[in-house]
Amino acid sequence: MKSRMFLLNILLLLAINTGHGQKNGDEDALMLKEIHNFVLSKGKCHEWLHALCKGGGPRLAGHAAYDSAVVITSKQLASIKGVKVSAQATKTHKWIRGAKEVVDYISPMGEITGLNALALGNSIGTGEQGLLAEVVEVFGLDDVEKMGEFLRGKVVFYNRAMDPTALRTFTAYGGAVDQRVYGASRAAKYGALAVLVRSMTTEIDDYPHTGTLIYTEGIKEIPALAISTMAAEKLSAMIKAQGGKVFIRNTSHIGEIQNCDNVIGELKGSEYPEKVIVVGGHLDAWDVGEGAHDDGSGCVQAMEVLHTIVSMGYKPRHTIRCVLFANEENGLAGGKAYAQQVLDAQEIHVAAIESDAGGFSPRGFSFDADTSVIKKYFKKVYTKFLPLLEPYGLQLELGGSGADIGPLKPCKGLLAGLRPDSQRYFDFHHTSRDVFENVHPRELKLGAAAMVSLVFLIDKYGIED
Amino acid sequence: MKSRMFLLNILLLLAINTGHGQKNGDEDALMLKEIHNFVLSKGKCHEWLHALCKGGGPRLAGHAAYDSAVVITSKQLASIKGVKVSAQATKTHKWIRGAKEVVDYISPMGEITGLNALALGNSIGTGEQGLLAEVVEVFGLDDVEKMGEFLRGKVVFYNRAMDPTALRTFTAYGGAVDQRVYGASRAAKYGALAVLVRSMTTEIDDYPHTGTLIYTEGIKEIPALAISTMAAEKLSAMIKAQGGKVFIRNTSHIGEIQNCDNVIGELKGSEYPEKVIVVGGHLDAWDVGEGAHDDGSGCVQAMEVLHTIVSMGYKPRHTIRCVLFANEENGLAGGKAYAQQVLDAQEIHVAAIESDAGGFSPRGFSFDADTSVIKKYFKKVYTKFLPLLEPYGLQLELGGSGADIGPLKPCKGLLAGLRPDSQRYFDFHHTSRDVFENVHPRELKLGAAAMVSLVFLIDKYGIED
Repeated sequence: MKSRMFLLNILLLLAINTGHGQKNGDEDALMLKEIHNFVLSKGKCHEWLHALCKGGGPRLAGHAAYDSAVVITSKQLASIKGVKVSAQATKTHKWIRGAKEVVDYISPMGEITGLNALALGNSIGTGEQGLLAEVVEVFGLDDVEKMGEFLRGKVVFYNRAMDPTALRTFTAYGGAVDQRVYGASRAAKYGALAVLVRSMTTEIDDYPHTGTLIYTEGIKEIPALAISTMAAEKLSAMIKAQGGKVFIRNTSHIGEIQNCDNVIGELKGSEYPEKVIVVGGHLDAWDVGEGAHDDGSGCVQAMEVLHTIVSMGYKPRHTIRCVLFANEENGLAGGKAYAQQVLDAQEIHVAAIESDAGGFSPRGFSFDADTSVIKKYFKKVYTKFLPLLEPYGLQLELGGSGADIGPLKPCKGLLAGLRPDSQRYFDFHHTSRDVFENVHPRELKLGAAAMVSLVFLIDKYGIED
Repeated sequence: MKSRMFLLNILLLLAINTGHGQKNGDEDALMLKEIHNFVLSKGKCHEWLHALCKGGGPRLAGHAAYDSAVVITSKQLASIKGVKVSAQATKTHKWIRGAKEVVDYISPMGEITGLNALALGNSIGTGEQGLLAEVVEVFGLDDVEKMGEFLRGKVVFYNRAMDPTALRTFTAYGGAVDQRVYGASRAAKYGALAVLVRSMTTEIDDYPHTGTLIYTEGIKEIPALAISTMAAEKLSAMIKAQGGKVFIRNTSHIGEIQNCDNVIGELKGSEYPEKVIVVGGHLDAWDVGEGAHDDGSGCVQAMEVLHTIVSMGYKPRHTIRCVLFANEENGLAGGKAYAQQVLDAQEIHVAAIESDAGGFSPRGFSFDADTSVIKKYFKKVYTKFLPLLEPYGLQLELGGSGADIGPLKPCKGLLAGLRPDSQRYFDFHHTSRDVFENVHPRELKLGAAAMVSLVFLIDKYGIED
């Protein structure tokens, strides 16, 4: 296309800066423009993401590479003038993937078809010898309940797809992920030997998606692996045509309890040093990619909040604390430990903002808070903040915030999640494709600028009327 | 991240469908949901784009491959029940790129550094022998005016970058593209031999971006080439350090006048067959990529409007016409010819909607219309349409519409442009990277669904109060 729309866009941009009658509104609009200018032209989050993704190896909590990520990000935070860096010790079980997984479909005639697979996080292994059993396709936990004892001695293959008609891919994920999280124990209840799960993506491709499972206490733990959507389609067709068996071998296992620190960078408030605004992401990532979108992006965006505030010479009234949480993916040790410390110390948390939905173009924030908090605060957020954020394509809504800041709910602060465009997230989520090269620098920076903007508004105006 | 936000998203989605007091509002919200469901699950635009991008070769207007694209898309349109397909003949000069371009920087010591380059569209060539001359860096047309005769016998290198702080990349493009469009004639006025232009992107990479230039009548035509932003940075540094010359060779040239048809698919209106709603994109594309975002996406999205309407069994009151325009990139012959025919026949065009800003996540529409049209119509659009579109992340604004439908302005219909997220557009625009694989299926489909939704609302309610 050509340039017909550009002049008009410029006019619109001017309109943004003149559309607010109040002096404060003008000042704030100008500040948000300056924040965006700074991050887009001088933001460090993209180069920090490069260092994090390429520097230390796969950083699943409990592994040595996680500790390298702690060192890398601590140095990055320490490079911001006035920021005090510390670590908060937490612990988690170390989960080890083991040897490359093998999943083979074996037809009644003995033909073997290899299927691209990854053990689910926290899964136990089959042992070196693997296992061979008849495979049964199901489309959800309910199917398993209905089939019951029929599943004894078999492998259960969960193949309910993510709903392609869901506008947001997270909605589709929410509608399918119970198979991955609870499928193993549900099938084990009826004596199944192992489960295969269709990967969590709306695309048909050959990348298996790992992710955590939760074993139900008191039920035998059985191996659980994700297969790619392409493999799932193939396996489904072969089972329908002729039945058959699968051979599965994985040697994943839970190891020793290990340290995994939260990384904390803090900028003291000038007026209310005892009142805290938290920005954060989680530093751990699945072992198969570089954790670039999930959640390297969130970490560097949270660090960018401090970097931008300091570089622009803005003196925050509240203490701004960047927390990079440990172990979100397979335990949430970091989020729980942080909240516990806050609650023990009776620290005041005005707000916590997490970015953990990928480094894509930001489309707004969703707020999760205690009902009393929402009643108290949302008038100001909607009447004062929203008109300033809208010119940047940012909307506000009620919804989730972030897994790591969820435990802060008893503090009755405002919990917010950055909400980027979700369409491409499940192309990368928990796969080998979640690498630095698949994060767009401008999209990442705009997400960071959105977070700085919200922090600025909360810091300047508080959130109480 | 995990699934905390999903349930809440579902609640929000339910809220969308219950938030309208009026019965009509409910019905319309349901219809828009069904439109989105259909396109996301059964839309054909993505497979059509594959056929278009991989089927016929580079489809610059006037070339044989353009005619292949006419055949491919005519067949696709003809596969939609009830759609009458026709071609509208137009003509354009055929521009031929010629041999692979050579741009070498030669230092005063004689060291040669190759720079990745593409001739600009409509540029003349240097001849087989090429040209060698001292190179001068400038940052805009004004610099050329100031330097004047100093530039005689030299090569002018335009190196003003796109502004990274512009929120929308089209704004940044609008602020830099004058160098590409008018740079050659401006420099030729003072006797320059050729121009090099920094590629139009905010990224630093090694892909040169072609695009059209316009020679001013009466001024000698000189060769003009784009070099990649990486090459531009390098060349700038070398010139600053030590001056130097460049050797340029390109053999591009204008050939004979050739046919290039607009492709038209029409669905007759049940109530107002004489009143037309146009949806369109441009079928031609630069020769270096596959024209996947620019503007294969727009073409298949426009075709998807007809496909969805017919497949859902909706009977439009107005005639819905899909027009795939010829020669947008280097002449606009298609858009001009179409408008002329409409004006000659005094046909009533209620609205025209173009998609020509890439197959990315849609963020709304911009409306360009005669002031009288805006005064008359916008109340309904804003009060009735906007609340229905907002749940899909779509906003409305004044702005441009599309180059091809611009000539329809005298019809006083509503001109609208689909406005997708712009952050990644200039990674691909007019480069070898503008290929099918870089268009995301869901983003493409959501853009199409947005267009179907707007067409449905205009068809149902008209746009007059």
